[in-house]
Amino acid sequence: MDYKPLSGREFPRFSGIKTFFRLPHVPVDSDYDVGIVGVPYDGGVSYRPGARFAPSKIREMSSLGRGYHWSRQFNIIEKLKIADIGDCPTVPVSQEKTYERMKVFFESLLKLNKKFISIGGDHSTTLPLLRAASKKYGQLRLIHFDAHLDTYPAAWGCEYHHGTFVRHAVNEGLIIPEKSVQIGIRGPLAGNDDLNFVNKHKIMVTTVDDVRNNFSEFLNNLPDFGNDPTFISYDIDCLDPSFAPGTGTPVPGGLTTYESQKILQALKVKNLVGADIVEVCPPFDPAEITSLAAVDTLFELLCIMAESK
Amino acid sequence: MDYKPLSGREFPRFSGIKTFFRLPHVPVDSDYDVGIVGVPYDGGVSYRPGARFAPSKIREMSSLGRGYHWSRQFNIIEKLKIADIGDCPTVPVSQEKTYERMKVFFESLLKLNKKFISIGGDHSTTLPLLRAASKKYGQLRLIHFDAHLDTYPAAWGCEYHHGTFVRHAVNEGLIIPEKSVQIGIRGPLAGNDDLNFVNKHKIMVTTVDDVRNNFSEFLNNLPDFGNDPTFISYDIDCLDPSFAPGTGTPVPGGLTTYESQKILQALKVKNLVGADIVEVCPPFDPAEITSLAAVDTLFELLCIMAESK
Amino acid sequence: MDYKPLSGREFPRFSGIKTFFRLPHVPVDSDYDVGIVGVPYDGGVSYRPGARFAPSKIREMSSLGRGYHWSRQFNIIEKLKIADIGDCPTVPVSQEKTYERMKVFFESLLKLNKKFISIGGDHSTTLPLLRAASKKYGQLRLIHFDAHLDTYPAAWGCEYHHGTFVRHAVNEGLIIPEKSVQIGIRGPLAGNDDLNFVNKHKIMVTTVDDVRNNFSEFLNNLPDFGNDPTFISYDIDCLDPSFAPGTGTPVPGGLTTYESQKILQALKVKNLVGADIVEVCPPFDPAEITSLAAVDTLFELLCIMAESK
Amino acid sequence: MDYKPLSGREFPRFSGIKTFFRLPHVPVDSDYDVGIVGVPYDGGVSYRPGARFAPSKIREMSSLGRGYHWSRQFNIIEKLKIADIGDCPTVPVSQEKTYERMKVFFESLLKLNKKFISIGGDHSTTLPLLRAASKKYGQLRLIHFDAHLDTYPAAWGCEYHHGTFVRHAVNEGLIIPEKSVQIGIRGPLAGNDDLNFVNKHKIMVTTVDDVRNNFSEFLNNLPDFGNDPTFISYDIDCLDPSFAPGTGTPVPGGLTTYESQKILQALKVKNLVGADIVEVCPPFDPAEITSLAAVDTLFELLCIMAESK
Amino acid sequence: MDYKPLSGREFPRFSGIKTFFRLPHVPVDSDYDVGIVGVPYDGGVSYRPGARFAPSKIREMSSLGRGYHWSRQFNIIEKLKIADIGDCPTVPVSQEKTYERMKVFFESLLKLNKKFISIGGDHSTTLPLLRAASKKYGQLRLIHFDAHLDTYPAAWGCEYHHGTFVRHAVNEGLIIPEKSVQIGIRGPLAGNDDLNFVNKHKIMVTTVDDVRNNFSEFLNNLPDFGNDPTFISYDIDCLDPSFAPGTGTPVPGGLTTYESQKILQALKVKNLVGADIVEVCPPFDPAEITSLAAVDTLFELLCIMAESK
Amino acid sequence: MDYKPLSGREFPRFSGIKTFFRLPHVPVDSDYDVGIVGVPYDGGVSYRPGARFAPSKIREMSSLGRGYHWSRQFNIIEKLKIADIGDCPTVPVSQEKTYERMKVFFESLLKLNKKFISIGGDHSTTLPLLRAASKKYGQLRLIHFDAHLDTYPAAWGCEYHHGTFVRHAVNEGLIIPEKSVQIGIRGPLAGNDDLNFVNKHKIMVTTVDDVRNNFSEFLNNLPDFGNDPTFISYDIDCLDPSFAPGTGTPVPGGLTTYESQKILQALKVKNLVGADIVEVCPPFDPAEITSLAAVDTLFELLCIMAESK
Repeated sequence: MDYKPLSGREFPRFSGIKTFFRLPHVPVDSDYDVGIVGVPYDGGVSYRPGARFAPSKIREMSSLGRGYHWSRQFNIIEKLKIADIGDCPTVPVSQEKTYERMKVFFESLLKLNKKFISIGGDHSTTLPLLRAASKKYGQLRLIHFDAHLDTYPAAWGCEYHHGTFVRHAVNEGLIIPEKSVQIGIRGPLAGNDDLNFVNKHKIMVTTVDDVRNNFSEFLNNLPDFGNDPTFISYDIDCLDPSFAPGTGTPVPGGLTTYESQKILQALKVKNLVGADIVEVCPPFDPAEITSLAAVDTLFELLCIMAESK
Repeated sequence: MDYKPLSGREFPRFSGIKTFFRLPHVPVDSDYDVGIVGVPYDGGVSYRPGARFAPSKIREMSSLGRGYHWSRQFNIIEKLKIADIGDCPTVPVSQEKTYERMKVFFESLLKLNKKFISIGGDHSTTLPLLRAASKKYGQLRLIHFDAHLDTYPAAWGCEYHHGTFVRHAVNEGLIIPEKSVQIGIRGPLAGNDDLNFVNKHKIMVTTVDDVRNNFSEFLNNLPDFGNDPTFISYDIDCLDPSFAPGTGTPVPGGLTTYESQKILQALKVKNLVGADIVEVCPPFDPAEITSLAAVDTLFELLCIMAESK
Repeated sequence: MDYKPLSGREFPRFSGIKTFFRLPHVPVDSDYDVGIVGVPYDGGVSYRPGARFAPSKIREMSSLGRGYHWSRQFNIIEKLKIADIGDCPTVPVSQEKTYERMKVFFESLLKLNKKFISIGGDHSTTLPLLRAASKKYGQLRLIHFDAHLDTYPAAWGCEYHHGTFVRHAVNEGLIIPEKSVQIGIRGPLAGNDDLNFVNKHKIMVTTVDDVRNNFSEFLNNLPDFGNDPTFISYDIDCLDPSFAPGTGTPVPGGLTTYESQKILQALKVKNLVGADIVEVCPPFDPAEITSLAAVDTLFELLCIMAESK
Repeated sequence: MDYKPLSGREFPRFSGIKTFFRLPHVPVDSDYDVGIVGVPYDGGVSYRPGARFAPSKIREMSSLGRGYHWSRQFNIIEKLKIADIGDCPTVPVSQEKTYERMKVFFESLLKLNKKFISIGGDHSTTLPLLRAASKKYGQLRLIHFDAHLDTYPAAWGCEYHHGTFVRHAVNEGLIIPEKSVQIGIRGPLAGNDDLNFVNKHKIMVTTVDDVRNNFSEFLNNLPDFGNDPTFISYDIDCLDPSFAPGTGTPVPGGLTTYESQKILQALKVKNLVGADIVEVCPPFDPAEITSLAAVDTLFELLCIMAESK
Repeated sequence: MDYKPLSGREFPRFSGIKTFFRLPHVPVDSDYDVGIVGVPYDGGVSYRPGARFAPSKIREMSSLGRGYHWSRQFNIIEKLKIADIGDCPTVPVSQEKTYERMKVFFESLLKLNKKFISIGGDHSTTLPLLRAASKKYGQLRLIHFDAHLDTYPAAWGCEYHHGTFVRHAVNEGLIIPEKSVQIGIRGPLAGNDDLNFVNKHKIMVTTVDDVRNNFSEFLNNLPDFGNDPTFISYDIDCLDPSFAPGTGTPVPGGLTTYESQKILQALKVKNLVGADIVEVCPPFDPAEITSLAAVDTLFELLCIMAESK
Repeated sequence: MDYKPLSGREFPRFSGIKTFFRLPHVPVDSDYDVGIVGVPYDGGVSYRPGARFAPSKIREMSSLGRGYHWSRQFNIIEKLKIADIGDCPTVPVSQEKTYERMKVFFESLLKLNKKFISIGGDHSTTLPLLRAASKKYGQLRLIHFDAHLDTYPAAWGCEYHHGTFVRHAVNEGLIIPEKSVQIGIRGPLAGNDDLNFVNKHKIMVTTVDDVRNNFSEFLNNLPDFGNDPTFISYDIDCLDPSFAPGTGTPVPGGLTTYESQKILQALKVKNLVGADIVEVCPPFDPAEITSLAAVDTLFELLCIMAESK
């Protein structure tokens, strides 16, 4: 198995069974380095559902992907064995059962010493990933792209919804808050609970203003994550709605895809143990640009993994 | 309070706060006869989510509604005090909590001796309605419009999803299966469990073939429900996808809206204690005709209630 | 000038400047027999605007048109000199000024002894057409395809909106009500004013029920319009929303395009002096089928004109 | 009445009757401070109609709104009593009658000493607002966000259309041109009439180039409106079509939502007597981001009002 | 290998790698009975392109498929080993090269004694299929569902486009015209070349009128294809645009999906050697109902193959 | 013939036969200076087809165009006689025949000493334009806006597809590579063939990073093209997908329309002999902003031509 994508020069990109980046679809226990896996679950969203279709749609749009990164000057395919390992089992009716299946799936995967990138699903799917990764690697440093702090309290009597994973990850000791960073954050806010939490736990919150006031300085001031086990959770709503309209709870005034690319390229991460891209909602993405932005982010994340190796 | 809709000749139909048929939005304990209520929950769907937006969208489209029925020759507004009583509380993350809130809401409503029409929501929302109505009125006769039998077994370890309410309603003794009827049913099927169940319980299943082989005979042969307490559950996917594309699990070869109108007009029901319209999924309804069909069905259901009185 | 359409076998149908049926665009005073003319005005609609874009969109979709009619067994191009004579001037802000410009335009056209088919625009544009045609030909017999009676009273203090042209046409003596017919009508209704008017004036109202109870009988019982000067006003909402979603005020339970074709083919009209197609609303027609249905109707109307000659 | 929005943590944001920011819908003469009111009229547009649906759509999208402003550091709900006061009566067929109804509505409102934010509607609806506000407060200073100067001459014989309100406001003495500012302006232009007018009357015109050449300087150089009675008219087409595609006459090369936010946050206005947001055209906004941008602007305008108090 | 589809009760239908009916994706030389294969080529269309995306979209929509046929009373999965064998190589820029690759692919497939159903692609892809099948089985009887006769002459100097395959199939002796049938045909026509050809070669042409004048008689009068090697080519535009808007050249007045189902169920074919479904054009199918209709047709074709065996 | 566009103040912009900028549609040999011509061909695309509809859609959107350029301070209509000369004949099924027809058309046009701007079509249509222009004017300097280098090798055995025109133009000696410039380029890349080619031939490649690192410097450092015969090929995918989603192969991280405007305004070109705009794909442009961006670019190109004169 050579883990090469189907060539667009031999087979047109609109043809063939759709896998991530046209890579081979293999069993979980194959000899790849990084497995890309779908987690089609959107039962945790508070407004627009539809992220359950994201893995399928992002597979489709990733047909346009190519492997050579202009500024990093390497081809991911030559650095890593990457595979599509299909979708993690999920249960649309029950978050609890979905969490159970995710636990089994990702703990097994990690036991095999695989890296993974999970394509959600809504942001409530990140918590089980952090639980599994933390169990394997110990406390993690989190790089969290989002419009929202995701430190909100329970809603409708439910502790686990798509705006709470950071709070739980801190409370469960899965991440080191003071060594973690949030990027793309902006208001409006609820104002008290959410902001108080990040302040209390000393999470480094950076807003769109921080990004734009002096971009090169912002890039230079990003922490160095060195060899610490690090997880990147990328909520597509960190991007502005003009770049990512197809998401559950869009917020105007967000990042551009270009800014996001530059930030991802500037990150100093030597040990990226896992990552996810969440909250892509295809039914609300008529021009398909949100899925396309997710494909681009997936490419950058793979590059970081290639450099981590 | 006169329960008159806002007049389209004074206030254009595109203006104003959106309520069902432009009727007054009133508290549950007001002096209306029939309350139209939204149940925005879609956590039970197996494929496309989005029915949570149905109450809001159907309110909007019902702005086009008018009250005088051509063939029944009366105006519903003159026969009934109808009101929009808002939405029942629901919990997107949890079916269990949604069922609890629905139980509280609808039992309270029924204690006030109100009739209701519920605008779902996916078809898993019908079971709590039947539980509440059966508690009030005893075993019910069910008229069930659907493409599917909804007698499917548990899926993914979950007993309650959008394809199981008939099975549970029979097993819990909420309806009288041999005095109930299903309309619009068609294949393909899973084949064993689902069909065996209806056969075993002697539910009268009528298919699109039955409707089309001889329509006037079909209409004449519909059972007379007389004064028996009766519930109508109308899954919009009984209609063909050309008439109702915006639904969770569409099935080609379905009813036309005209056939549906004629069937609803032919029903002999003197005691309609409640009804619902489910599985309208606005994010997949680009031309808005599915919501429009729901508005039309809602009008017919209100007429049956007006004649029940 | 040979009034031949651009051939699809030489120039692909997606190419070229868009005119109706790819026919020549000529000045009003050229030597054609029938002029197809746009009337892009939608200031009279009570709900969805957008019919102002109908002439442009229908020109585009008519690229797919071909000239030979299967059952009539002739090619319209060989029977008639047909031309696109552009759009009548209209004023979006003012119905009054639009009516003035229409009066000038159509009276001039009729002085040249031209037949015309007008592509609206909303249904308020029909009244000026009837005024001009009646001035030329005397009282007309009207064949009116619609979901609505269009005999509604003034709304918001305005006598002339898209639901009133029949009332005014009768009151102004432009048409002979008892020799006119309405087709495709259905409820719900406002109930009193509108229905009373048609009953009082003995307009022959036929509903979708009338069409469907016995279609061949319905076709046979249509009046013979003989050599009487006749006008056909075709509101696209006579069709069911599944066939014509893109319209201002859609009503479920309508005609199919096939039924409409058969009715148009069954009409006995020897002196069709003018016709229009109205209420096509492209912004609400995502699959373009409403415009396509309008193109098909336009073809049938041209055939009737060819046979009138 | 506490003028609190329905909480998203208790009632999911997709549920409930849609009002602006989920605030109470109250009669005009209630004890709120600021009334948000819809003006659903689009009869003045020269190209795409549809703004009549903006109040309804913006109500829907404002369900996502939250009250705490990150940089201003307050919650609007704690500073102001804000209410949804429904829609002003309008007449789709007649601009004249719409102006009359607006005059009655807004003069009554102002007599009650209420502040208001009007959600249009096309830009021809701003003139009656300025007339009413000027009658109450005297000559106003105008802050006008737009791609267009809106000083165009009459078109099609009509003085009042969606590109003329500034000319009339100056000519009628409603605003003080040399103390007013236009933001977001860009070409192409007609060139003579429109530009000459603003030059002659010394309106401060700022273009996108002005904004981008040095943004912080631009923000610093904005006039101080102090306690002068000021009106903000926000045409959504000041934004680039990538941020606001759903508008009547979009112009490439416009502002980003982020720039718009920063400008609104930089404005020194102590006496904002009224404001409007116009030209949101939902039928041309498939990803709903234009309505979302309007919600965001509405939030900033409410903040300015909160600070004005 | 058991050729069972992924169960929807274990893995939700929105999850997993998309294959036709969730069946295994296997190499061409595996031990299946019927291979479903995509032919993503649309270079032969005269109007709307996009059918290249049909295999991918139909795979996605076929997730909703189930195997038990209500009236045939069997489950295809229990009768046949069916597999997804991926896409045939195609060349978007060159019809000639596409034909070459199709020849190689399908001749190889047929050498293995496999049955196939091809999912096009535009209708120009049928000719190579008939060439390969005829080479294997001798002259074929053709059952051709279409709005068009597809006997058109060359266009733009090109013999092979999406409206010519029947002419070439007859001229090359691939099919027996007088033992073939066309279903769903309707006007308008070009009129001479196309109709003359079918008359001359005695192809049995049946129109929508033939279907509707007496449906049960029509079904009874369909020829018996017995054990003759038969090919079914199903152009989705045989359906009315309300059922199949997403196609290259839609024609109003077509079949319903129900009529199509009944015709497919009535066909007496004992030796179906191959079939295709063509002209599904996803970019023009906003509500996805065209792809859904294709899935339903694919199911019926598989059933005919199951009964052929 | 005065080559004035139809005035929007007399005839609303939604009315009339659609031509580029509402200019006269004239025969090729009329006395205009610059002819705008459609080249509706998309047979060369590797992913999404649909650019064949671009000429028609861009004509429609150009109804919004106006002639006075704010910063250049002139009205193109007063400087140039510009006309719509219709569409060049193309053949959807055959690239070879399309190239032949383009050769005939554009060589004839150039013999008449006309300037032209071609509205494609996919990027494979640029090569025949360069061949014709080079034959007339000798070797050209190329200004190439694109996300892609378009120096890719043959694909699927085809030398000419939409990613190869630069390679062929260099190899055929049509352009002077070391005096040409590429703008908007970005990764990901295939990496070897494409980048090696531009390096080897010393084409000046500028990326989005180059544009953004210091924009005013970038603008100042653009080469001076003086009186050298120059051709501008503008692939709309140079823009970011948020500004131009409707294109064949979109790439995130692209230019904004504002940046594109400023670059086009900064170009020092005194002898622009021809230009094209390609890869606008209307079926994937639901909000029509891609076509709108094309109209804006067309306006800038016309301005450059006006200044070239």
